[in-house]
Amino acid sequence: RTVITNFFSCFLQGILERLDAGEIVIGDGGFVFALEKRGYVKAGPWTPEATVEHPEAVRQLHREFLRAGSNVLQTFTFYASEDKLENRGNYVAEKITGQKVNEAACDIAKEVAKEGDALVAGGVSQTPSYLSCKDKAQVKAVFRKQLEVFMRKDVDFLIAEYFEHVEEAVWAVEVLKESGKPVAATMCIGPEGDMHGVPPGQCAVQLVKAGASIVGVNCHFDADTCLKTVKLMKEGLEAAKLKAYLMSQPLAFHTPDCGKQGFIDLPEFPFGLEPRIATRWDVQKYARQAYDLGIRYIGGCCGFEPYHIRAIAEELAPEKGFLPEASEKHGSWGNSLSMHTKPWVRARARKEYWENLKPASGRPYCPSLSKPDGWGVTKGAKELMQQKEATTEQQLKELFQKQKF
Amino acid sequence: RTVITNFFSCFLQGILERLDAGEIVIGDGGFVFALEKRGYVKAGPWTPEATVEHPEAVRQLHREFLRAGSNVLQTFTFYASEDKLENRGNYVAEKITGQKVNEAACDIAKEVAKEGDALVAGGVSQTPSYLSCKDKAQVKAVFRKQLEVFMRKDVDFLIAEYFEHVEEAVWAVEVLKESGKPVAATMCIGPEGDMHGVPPGQCAVQLVKAGASIVGVNCHFDADTCLKTVKLMKEGLEAAKLKAYLMSQPLAFHTPDCGKQGFIDLPEFPFGLEPRIATRWDVQKYARQAYDLGIRYIGGCCGFEPYHIRAIAEELAPEKGFLPEASEKHGSWGNSLSMHTKPWVRARARKEYWENLKPASGRPYCPSLSKPDGWGVTKGAKELMQQKEATTEQQLKELFQKQKF
Amino acid sequence: RTVITNFFSCFLQGILERLDAGEIVIGDGGFVFALEKRGYVKAGPWTPEATVEHPEAVRQLHREFLRAGSNVLQTFTFYASEDKLENRGNYVAEKITGQKVNEAACDIAKEVAKEGDALVAGGVSQTPSYLSCKDKAQVKAVFRKQLEVFMRKDVDFLIAEYFEHVEEAVWAVEVLKESGKPVAATMCIGPEGDMHGVPPGQCAVQLVKAGASIVGVNCHFDADTCLKTVKLMKEGLEAAKLKAYLMSQPLAFHTPDCGKQGFIDLPEFPFGLEPRIATRWDVQKYARQAYDLGIRYIGGCCGFEPYHIRAIAEELAPEKGFLPEASEKHGSWGNSLSMHTKPWVRARARKEYWENLKPASGRPYCPSLSKPDGWGVTKGAKELMQQKEATTEQQLKELFQKQKF
Amino acid sequence: RTVITNFFSCFLQGILERLDAGEIVIGDGGFVFALEKRGYVKAGPWTPEATVEHPEAVRQLHREFLRAGSNVLQTFTFYASEDKLENRGNYVAEKITGQKVNEAACDIAKEVAKEGDALVAGGVSQTPSYLSCKDKAQVKAVFRKQLEVFMRKDVDFLIAEYFEHVEEAVWAVEVLKESGKPVAATMCIGPEGDMHGVPPGQCAVQLVKAGASIVGVNCHFDADTCLKTVKLMKEGLEAAKLKAYLMSQPLAFHTPDCGKQGFIDLPEFPFGLEPRIATRWDVQKYARQAYDLGIRYIGGCCGFEPYHIRAIAEELAPEKGFLPEASEKHGSWGNSLSMHTKPWVRARARKEYWENLKPASGRPYCPSLSKPDGWGVTKGAKELMQQKEATTEQQLKELFQKQKF
Repeated sequence: RTVITNFFSCFLQGILERLDAGEIVIGDGGFVFALEKRGYVKAGPWTPEATVEHPEAVRQLHREFLRAGSNVLQTFTFYASEDKLENRGNYVAEKITGQKVNEAACDIAKEVAKEGDALVAGGVSQTPSYLSCKDKAQVKAVFRKQLEVFMRKDVDFLIAEYFEHVEEAVWAVEVLKESGKPVAATMCIGPEGDMHGVPPGQCAVQLVKAGASIVGVNCHFDADTCLKTVKLMKEGLEAAKLKAYLMSQPLAFHTPDCGKQGFIDLPEFPFGLEPRIATRWDVQKYARQAYDLGIRYIGGCCGFEPYHIRAIAEELAPEKGFLPEASEKHGSWGNSLSMHTKPWVRARARKEYWENLKPASGRPYCPSLSKPDGWGVTKGAKELMQQKEATTEQQLKELFQKQKF
Repeated sequence: RTVITNFFSCFLQGILERLDAGEIVIGDGGFVFALEKRGYVKAGPWTPEATVEHPEAVRQLHREFLRAGSNVLQTFTFYASEDKLENRGNYVAEKITGQKVNEAACDIAKEVAKEGDALVAGGVSQTPSYLSCKDKAQVKAVFRKQLEVFMRKDVDFLIAEYFEHVEEAVWAVEVLKESGKPVAATMCIGPEGDMHGVPPGQCAVQLVKAGASIVGVNCHFDADTCLKTVKLMKEGLEAAKLKAYLMSQPLAFHTPDCGKQGFIDLPEFPFGLEPRIATRWDVQKYARQAYDLGIRYIGGCCGFEPYHIRAIAEELAPEKGFLPEASEKHGSWGNSLSMHTKPWVRARARKEYWENLKPASGRPYCPSLSKPDGWGVTKGAKELMQQKEATTEQQLKELFQKQKF
Repeated sequence: RTVITNFFSCFLQGILERLDAGEIVIGDGGFVFALEKRGYVKAGPWTPEATVEHPEAVRQLHREFLRAGSNVLQTFTFYASEDKLENRGNYVAEKITGQKVNEAACDIAKEVAKEGDALVAGGVSQTPSYLSCKDKAQVKAVFRKQLEVFMRKDVDFLIAEYFEHVEEAVWAVEVLKESGKPVAATMCIGPEGDMHGVPPGQCAVQLVKAGASIVGVNCHFDADTCLKTVKLMKEGLEAAKLKAYLMSQPLAFHTPDCGKQGFIDLPEFPFGLEPRIATRWDVQKYARQAYDLGIRYIGGCCGFEPYHIRAIAEELAPEKGFLPEASEKHGSWGNSLSMHTKPWVRARARKEYWENLKPASGRPYCPSLSKPDGWGVTKGAKELMQQKEATTEQQLKELFQKQKF
Repeated sequence: RTVITNFFSCFLQGILERLDAGEIVIGDGGFVFALEKRGYVKAGPWTPEATVEHPEAVRQLHREFLRAGSNVLQTFTFYASEDKLENRGNYVAEKITGQKVNEAACDIAKEVAKEGDALVAGGVSQTPSYLSCKDKAQVKAVFRKQLEVFMRKDVDFLIAEYFEHVEEAVWAVEVLKESGKPVAATMCIGPEGDMHGVPPGQCAVQLVKAGASIVGVNCHFDADTCLKTVKLMKEGLEAAKLKAYLMSQPLAFHTPDCGKQGFIDLPEFPFGLEPRIATRWDVQKYARQAYDLGIRYIGGCCGFEPYHIRAIAEELAPEKGFLPEASEKHGSWGNSLSMHTKPWVRARARKEYWENLKPASGRPYCPSLSKPDGWGVTKGAKELMQQKEATTEQQLKELFQKQKF
């Protein structure tokens, strides 16, 4: 097989130039989940101190996404705001400051980006400061601290991602726009909108008005749900006669049974999600649907491993004009099975087979769907409070009603 | 949390000394599946030329298993016999000889092993030569070529693994024993025995008589099935009054619906197995059951990622006396969730929760089990032959009846 | 156990008097499905010639529903309009006229009703005349023929049921109102409304304006979906400041995967629906939810067997003040198991057990949900047309777009 | 469609003459389950006092089975031994003696049998006397009391069915043989054998030696499991060079997850078994497999409704030479759908469609399989004992170990 040459690769350009030229931009996958499984990130806090502690592991994951076809390497700065890292101080050695984590993240991403033609995007995400009701100036100061590192390291553009409240996302975009660099903004919401009930269309409008050139969703929901949400954003922008590029970075988990707050409320989160993991064929279907919807920045979030990103790149290879490097080790639609010794395995070397396969779970004692937990739903929460007595039920309920966690 | 000190780590010893001392030896996980997802191995041929092409990727995976608690690093020499690599010549650049692949594999494993106290095991597996009916001398010559590298690189011990025919496994053990080093031998068979119908108990007896000090199973079946098979091996050895250590390295996929030839015949193999992936809790259960059965070399095969190996190490930490390094980033039984902002997620920070969870697949349109393909079962095979006409049905049937593929 | 006396039974009253007095009226179950399984109704045509051919079978089923707690016996006149019976002439002996079928149905229902205190309701349902675009006068003439029989046999009240188009349902109600007797009207629609897109709320308003005193839904959808639809009807009536009693007679099948046109489009219809059959506990839940929603005429349609109706009666026994006769042979919430010899079976003799049971299908090779067939969805339809060539695809498509089948 | 004439019907013969002539004998279905759903039998005691209390209901069910193709009508005398009826005295009005129940059962069956060409079989089943360790003479006296009625009413032959212990079954056969009439004997066991561990082959041998001309299994397990058990019986008889006709009357529930004691231990028994109900197509498959195995008395037990029996008769119509009466209301393999208005429903009017359908449960929150309850498995049992304190755990355990319940 001849790998088609990438005609764009010799002219390295910025994110907006690429999108303006009609190029499809492929994002990267889910760092915290992938590195949790590799042993470098702790589920619960989900903080990225690995950039300082184990740079080789972070570097290798970036490289794998690059080989898989990612056109953007996001700095591994999820939950790397100072307030978040402090909150989880017990997990992070004292001398590892937020500044160091952010700097190391930039260095690693830039170093790997040079191995190909990828852009580097500095990223910020929702903060404990906002959830604990700090004011606009305080929250903005937190974002500004990360931005200073991104500016010093001269990343290519900026992403505000994983926001449940459009208000905070707007603040983040406003800060990031101070840089003069292009800004993308994605919220971790579903079709029902943000945690205060602002519908996706309105969220998109507010984000674009605040300065985002690219808007969309990431995390919390599966591809189907994310595409529904982006469609609502698109319609909102059209109604408001605003223009922006669309972006989606969903989970690589099947979560049709999610409630409003997404996969965190599913009983399987975060240590029993395996049966929900998307196949590469599921991802190819997602990539095509995203493209058909007009989304041009297509990537993944939690659960997306390098082979999932490669599936996006392979599905859209006809449009992009080339295959990613890692396709050297992959046959399109299973054709690497065509030389298998067993004829019935060879018979799987075709698109129709994998497109139509309904994969079994091997778990006949398990159900297909779960009821999400949530306030009033779970006995567990109550039991826990009885044990811990750290917080009164009333206090928790009030917090919940304010939707601040 | 204080990581318990490993009292054994200062006294690096051989595999048999460790087992003789009552130590539990934790194996590593599945290289071909993990590296396929990372973009370095091609499904179908499954050959390990990545040791030469992308040593950093192989090194990083070894390191992750080491951190997760592996006491043995197997050289990434699966399917690295000369005849296999030649067979798949189109996938491997001409200058990458089998010798180079095997040498690089040894170098990488030894380099990483020094970062901890792990042993390095050189591994051989079943050969195309045997399947194409070459004679004993010819097959042994193939193994001997790999062994020469292992001797030159001075690995700690040797593993003959992934044999469907006990005859070939015995030949492999005989060759490996020429080295004077300890030999482990595992077959990829289930309770029904090898492809010629030799029951597991008899296989074990033959392997021990040929010189193996450690015997068991790897690959092809899930943990439950593998433990049943090892139990039959154990009983066979007891009946024959032979002594050997027991070893198990099963799949990290739930495959109760497998037929005699294992997961390759499942319609989901190899690109739709995601819903079958074991959780860390499934693996903890497996580790405990393996230990209780008397198995002292406990690892994994295809599907085992670093966090699965960590699950073995955490389950058996009371017996071993220490936690693996990667447990720094993991709370036992989900306790890293105990500080989550949502009370119902905090309520998941306990053993009982994860032990009893029946994880949903999120796929209500999919079944729980599949019927394995196989001769006469699959229309696909016939269709394929009609298309390809490369082989007559009669020829294939004869091959099949000889059970040589 | 003492069966609580029914204080109302001595004062036999009309349907509206009962409802006005606050009584809950329990409907009966699904005749065509129950009698198909007993061997007296043919799936496909679903016509009720059994009233003439096998009156003893119809009589026995009425009696079972009466014993189970039905307060209304519907004449078995579903699809008994002259045009329908003619259409299916090949299934009905020539001498069995529509008039005879309707008369026999009335006779049997009235005879059994006297064994208890039940009312008899004459029923009409949607007609081929409407679907083949006959005009209002022609369609009304069809209903009027059935009504003449109901008047002659002096049934207690009338039901227009199983209408997919509100226009036809309104015509039916108008005809039935000519009798001066109370009229109930139920449509076989879901929350998306009738086949021309009239939403449930508007359907209800039109039906009440046409003269119906009781409105609601029957058939085509499971209990959950039916209750959602009735809720929308209720809201429509409230918005229009109209008063009517609410009625629901859903399927006894779980059909969350239905499309707009209900269970007929599910691939399991009508001969593979077994795994979807509701348990008695599912029905108790439905009865309670229907009651809480304000529905006072609560029954069932296809799939409802006598024990399902008993489940309604038992759930609402506290409100009604008595248990049905058939509860002599039933322990509330499984308490008849309390003397079982096995302690673990005795342990099932309690409400909490059955309420929380997630019953297994025993079918691990089957999915949980199906994709409904429908235009453009099913290859089967196209294949069939290729075979039969009776109808051009274009003709069928036009028919479909007119939604006249 | 012309109903093929039954050439045998004019020559009414005994059961053995029919079998000797090579005829297939179709049994009837499950009375206690069918009548429980109709409101005439109480789950738990499962006694047949309905023969006296509601003869019309019993008569109607017999008639439906006859129309469906049953060649044998079993008297509804399951659990009608005097000791069983007394045990459950609270459910049976005082004046309804065992004699009356048995007499009425015979009268009803004989009356209906005359409507066709069916034989009447008097049936006995396992007794509380045996389970409470009464001696052989005492147990035999119980059977003899029922036999006296069967002799007086002159039934055509006798069936000893639903025995978990071969010892008791042998005693029953010995008593029934005193009559001089042909005796059939079926046990409710699986491939693991009777409750004392006697394997199926040996059970069959003992029963034939005691005088049974027909042996097999009924109840407790699904068709697949029952056929496995009958196959073992067949092999046992062949090994012992004994001749007997084979008989199977399995459940109409899918129960692959049963333990040794069958479906009673499944958590769904008896009020949540709906998702497990066999379709008519499942039953056709069973009938064919039973026939191919050499079974010539083919019927059903709990869960078998008239349409299930019709499915046996339709599957074996080519061999029998005629269709049952109830096939007037049934199209072979769904062909009654061939005139449906929707083309995709018409497309279901073919054998291939129904044979290959994997019917969905509509229950995505439920699993496919359950773990059977049993001693030591169920917390429920212990909780119950804590509440009731009627029996000490020790007492129950002792009972259990004696396997006398």
